[in-house]
Amino acid sequence: MTVRTAVAGASGYAGGEVLRLLLGHPEVEIGALTAGGNAGARLGPLQPHLVPLADRVLVETTAETLAGHDVVFLALPHGHSGEIAAQLGPDTLVIDCGADHRLSNAQDWERWYGSAHAGHWPYGLPELPNGRDKLKGTKRVAVPGCYPTVSSLALAPAVEHGLITDDVVVVAVSGTSGAGKSLKTNLLGSEVMGSLSAYGVGGTHRHTPEIIQNLSAVAGRRVNVSFTPVLAPLPRGILATCTAPLTGTGNVREVYERAYADEPFVYLLPQDQWPTTAAVLGSNAVHIQVTVDEDLQRLVVVAAIDNLTKGTAGAAVQSMNIALGLPETAGLSTVGVAP
Amino acid sequence: MTVRTAVAGASGYAGGEVLRLLLGHPEVEIGALTAGGNAGARLGPLQPHLVPLADRVLVETTAETLAGHDVVFLALPHGHSGEIAAQLGPDTLVIDCGADHRLSNAQDWERWYGSAHAGHWPYGLPELPNGRDKLKGTKRVAVPGCYPTVSSLALAPAVEHGLITDDVVVVAVSGTSGAGKSLKTNLLGSEVMGSLSAYGVGGTHRHTPEIIQNLSAVAGRRVNVSFTPVLAPLPRGILATCTAPLTGTGNVREVYERAYADEPFVYLLPQDQWPTTAAVLGSNAVHIQVTVDEDLQRLVVVAAIDNLTKGTAGAAVQSMNIALGLPETAGLSTVGVAP
Amino acid sequence: MTVRTAVAGASGYAGGEVLRLLLGHPEVEIGALTAGGNAGARLGPLQPHLVPLADRVLVETTAETLAGHDVVFLALPHGHSGEIAAQLGPDTLVIDCGADHRLSNAQDWERWYGSAHAGHWPYGLPELPNGRDKLKGTKRVAVPGCYPTVSSLALAPAVEHGLITDDVVVVAVSGTSGAGKSLKTNLLGSEVMGSLSAYGVGGTHRHTPEIIQNLSAVAGRRVNVSFTPVLAPLPRGILATCTAPLTGTGNVREVYERAYADEPFVYLLPQDQWPTTAAVLGSNAVHIQVTVDEDLQRLVVVAAIDNLTKGTAGAAVQSMNIALGLPETAGLSTVGVAP
Amino acid sequence: MTVRTAVAGASGYAGGEVLRLLLGHPEVEIGALTAGGNAGARLGPLQPHLVPLADRVLVETTAETLAGHDVVFLALPHGHSGEIAAQLGPDTLVIDCGADHRLSNAQDWERWYGSAHAGHWPYGLPELPNGRDKLKGTKRVAVPGCYPTVSSLALAPAVEHGLITDDVVVVAVSGTSGAGKSLKTNLLGSEVMGSLSAYGVGGTHRHTPEIIQNLSAVAGRRVNVSFTPVLAPLPRGILATCTAPLTGTGNVREVYERAYADEPFVYLLPQDQWPTTAAVLGSNAVHIQVTVDEDLQRLVVVAAIDNLTKGTAGAAVQSMNIALGLPETAGLSTVGVAP
Repeated sequence: MTVRTAVAGASGYAGGEVLRLLLGHPEVEIGALTAGGNAGARLGPLQPHLVPLADRVLVETTAETLAGHDVVFLALPHGHSGEIAAQLGPDTLVIDCGADHRLSNAQDWERWYGSAHAGHWPYGLPELPNGRDKLKGTKRVAVPGCYPTVSSLALAPAVEHGLITDDVVVVAVSGTSGAGKSLKTNLLGSEVMGSLSAYGVGGTHRHTPEIIQNLSAVAGRRVNVSFTPVLAPLPRGILATCTAPLTGTGNVREVYERAYADEPFVYLLPQDQWPTTAAVLGSNAVHIQVTVDEDLQRLVVVAAIDNLTKGTAGAAVQSMNIALGLPETAGLSTVGVAP
Repeated sequence: MTVRTAVAGASGYAGGEVLRLLLGHPEVEIGALTAGGNAGARLGPLQPHLVPLADRVLVETTAETLAGHDVVFLALPHGHSGEIAAQLGPDTLVIDCGADHRLSNAQDWERWYGSAHAGHWPYGLPELPNGRDKLKGTKRVAVPGCYPTVSSLALAPAVEHGLITDDVVVVAVSGTSGAGKSLKTNLLGSEVMGSLSAYGVGGTHRHTPEIIQNLSAVAGRRVNVSFTPVLAPLPRGILATCTAPLTGTGNVREVYERAYADEPFVYLLPQDQWPTTAAVLGSNAVHIQVTVDEDLQRLVVVAAIDNLTKGTAGAAVQSMNIALGLPETAGLSTVGVAP
Repeated sequence: MTVRTAVAGASGYAGGEVLRLLLGHPEVEIGALTAGGNAGARLGPLQPHLVPLADRVLVETTAETLAGHDVVFLALPHGHSGEIAAQLGPDTLVIDCGADHRLSNAQDWERWYGSAHAGHWPYGLPELPNGRDKLKGTKRVAVPGCYPTVSSLALAPAVEHGLITDDVVVVAVSGTSGAGKSLKTNLLGSEVMGSLSAYGVGGTHRHTPEIIQNLSAVAGRRVNVSFTPVLAPLPRGILATCTAPLTGTGNVREVYERAYADEPFVYLLPQDQWPTTAAVLGSNAVHIQVTVDEDLQRLVVVAAIDNLTKGTAGAAVQSMNIALGLPETAGLSTVGVAP
Repeated sequence: MTVRTAVAGASGYAGGEVLRLLLGHPEVEIGALTAGGNAGARLGPLQPHLVPLADRVLVETTAETLAGHDVVFLALPHGHSGEIAAQLGPDTLVIDCGADHRLSNAQDWERWYGSAHAGHWPYGLPELPNGRDKLKGTKRVAVPGCYPTVSSLALAPAVEHGLITDDVVVVAVSGTSGAGKSLKTNLLGSEVMGSLSAYGVGGTHRHTPEIIQNLSAVAGRRVNVSFTPVLAPLPRGILATCTAPLTGTGNVREVYERAYADEPFVYLLPQDQWPTTAAVLGSNAVHIQVTVDEDLQRLVVVAAIDNLTKGTAGAAVQSMNIALGLPETAGLSTVGVAP
């Protein structure tokens, strides 16, 4: 079986990572590569690491250029996927790496993104309870945000088994590629290197409602999440520290071991070993460690992902595999590039 | 007035930073420089940035070599200050950059450091309520740990004015120099660059009891602090994210403005501007911003310091200035080296 | 004596570094701060490390706003200094941190910069032979480029004493701040971190004719220089590797020792110690080491500076000090901020 | 065909990279993993990115533990390969990632490494003229050093076609992993980040004779190479700037195009695009660009590799593929992990 794929937004970081993974996927053929402002340009200078595609020319992102593919990956700025997706046929598997179809609640969408809600699609995080079932055979996938991916996987087992209260605090430190290739002063190398900064503080980051949506769905009730993202000087990687008061005396480690025993990409580290983002660089792995602060009776979970791989493009490919009935791990790896 | 100073542990990061600041201090003369394994070596190759001291030769750290100075800075590994300090005369101002004299409770010391308690000295964080008074005229100063400095200053006004509950969460991201010049694999550049990692998770980092001690003293009751440090790829700087549920409806910003209005080194940023560690690099400044997560009614404070300056050597010099009745800001600056 | 200064281009990296140094200068008062697109804004959010100036408001860069100061620093994009300088009175000391007045040959200027030549001013590199004399009492200073500074100081003694042939190769590795605060994709943190790249290869970088001008003036004949700059992942610092065949058997080290014996900012390292840019960060120091490749009979000189300090703003302040008859080292330091 | 492999030195950076590549190789089975001081330990904490091998236990590096494999990769400190290799049977393919068998001249070896010469093996750089032939069917491979790989490939076509004189200058900037996992102060993250430094200056780096050996073999006469390595703050990657005077008027670009037209891993970039190490991270690709400095009539070549992949482990696997008659690109990629 050869799956013919197209990537919209091929000159950005998310699009580039989708292409990097597709180049290593055994059952995929790469068709149209589209862009906005970069349409007409060769891919080579824009994504110099994708040597086999260097001579490909980017075309405009339109329903026409994207037509005729089995799978279309949308790696577009938030708010741009809805319209183009609506023009793609119901038989095309459309995988939206942007935020447009993540939130189920239209009011949430409008509050946080300030535009009309494009709708809610099956959510590309198969490791959540019943997450895999929603993706089998689907023709539409909303790829999770990078922070919601790592935070939800860090906390879902504890929430599902009632180990913690609803008073969750997440502080997640991220590399800069999560902000995309945007030309903003605060993203310049001179500003980023040697510096740490917080942003979207006080519950104002747009990934907040998505984390709450995920954990509340697992809990069957509203879970509150105080979420603060921190920007650190590295290109890729997110390390999330997640904590909440324990409710009782369940065996925390056992719960996590059971939850992820059969997951190909979630790796609960042996005791006393803590996650590092270097270990997951370029891989689809999630490294997790759990512990209990005995003095405070608090759960503390630390989890690491590569924001561009498991946090975006890896989840997109994993979801494609499930949706099409391919082996879930095809084209994906748990082996990071370190040091 | 010329103050004659000695620095024990002059080849390490803390000792080097003390020397960097003393070289710019208008009323200080630099006397003996001592070391352990590096005794006998020239300072130049060990601290190549301290050009004016390049030809100084390090001597053994003993009571004899440290005698005859007005001020002795101890920048020694934890557990090594007590014995040497006991041999220094009562008229010498001894400033301990290590942990030995920070904790007031001997049982806490023994639990966290595993050795006999050396005693409790006036604490070198003048910005805490009544903090300055304890330092005036003192002959002994315990310089705070870097994480306790930034965390305590971020939270003290809220704690003092009863704005938050006792359920505090601090996640602090740090550069690598806080770990000293130790030859450990996880501190190698190849391991650190491009990676984020958590350590001392679950309330096990030794700065935890010191943060609790500070905030509990301010509150007049036990304050619980869940503290997690994260290591990030930069040499200097700590960014702390501190959060706790609000207790009521006090005007948070006003409380912080009043608390730090007259502090020369604490800078409450204008609204909508968030701290970055680059802005405080090499300076004694603390940059703070506060906000309220309205959905959750949680206080979120973000604060940045340079762990080697305000977090260690700057606090040492500031404490010296206060103890000796010099201008508090002598030899110190609020101007960072950026970008 | 209080010198009243203005800084044009106060929101950029060069302007910010001039201000950082002026804040520590004992005889300077900071007057007008001007900008282009940022006029009207507070300085605080643009230069968060300059806390004492945070509430200053930037004004338009015009002859009027810059009038009434003893010294005007121009930290403007190349090609913008000539016109504004022409409008400043002959009694004002004008210090141009840009390239406009560096090249003596109008044809060179036109070839490399593509515009009309603004003229040639005394060159702010006092450590060159007779360099200091040209600056005493001058009212116009052309601050050298960062690469020419480090390359010229690395090679001038060898050229002056005829130790090497005219076939010089310089490869200089630089941090990113040399490129300014420009919003270019290749300067984004995500692109820069974890990467090395060469640019301006093949003798096409605009600093090439300036290096050749300097060394040819020292030699009294044309010196050829193959110059290649490399961009590395750090905010500040240049390390230049400079090599040329030896012509004879002169004592290389002795020549360098004599050349820089009395220079307050040039530090010839003791044998076996090699320069690092960390050691000069934020300082006006130049660290140099020389050696001979015995197999090839080649001179190899390695030199390090902070491109924003000795490479730009430090040279500007040093030149101001000389021009005004102030102590040459006022407001400047040889002490770096490390690690 | 399944090739059974062993890796000696599995806990180091070179060994870890060999394992990372072998995990993605379609025809390889991973057998014994051996170590020195780490024997007895699980691989997981030492190489946390190699999740599928986390539970493997390291055994002592001996002829016995390495016996019974088709291929043995030696990733040992210099000087340790000779003895163990001598004990491995003549039918085992032994691939030495260390320096021991690279130099053909015993006197050179003794001068540069100070021990007895272990002998000279076929050299694992198939892209050199006739390089591939020497590897077909061989049972012994000396993997090139990282600097010699990038420098030799950058210059071989020019040398082979007589385009340049014998007066070559190479300045190569490298990430820190080339120095291995050694516990040295100058390799600590705090020292490396934010700093550039040169080392092995003046023709004293041990890779110098290897570069000269390679280029001299291509030229058929002695080629002189002035080589200076520079350490920069990134974990992986080497960017080499190579220059020499042109001898005549050959079409440089054409020569390079022809030289590498059929090479699967060498990518001569389109004109005006310059190599970056980010683009080759984790890949076996070599990115090259050539130009002529018209003023000086000098060739300038810039080339980028990942020092751990094409510079070490990738070359090892590529050589294995050739030696065993497998597809040369099996388990290797030209696709980098960027940004």
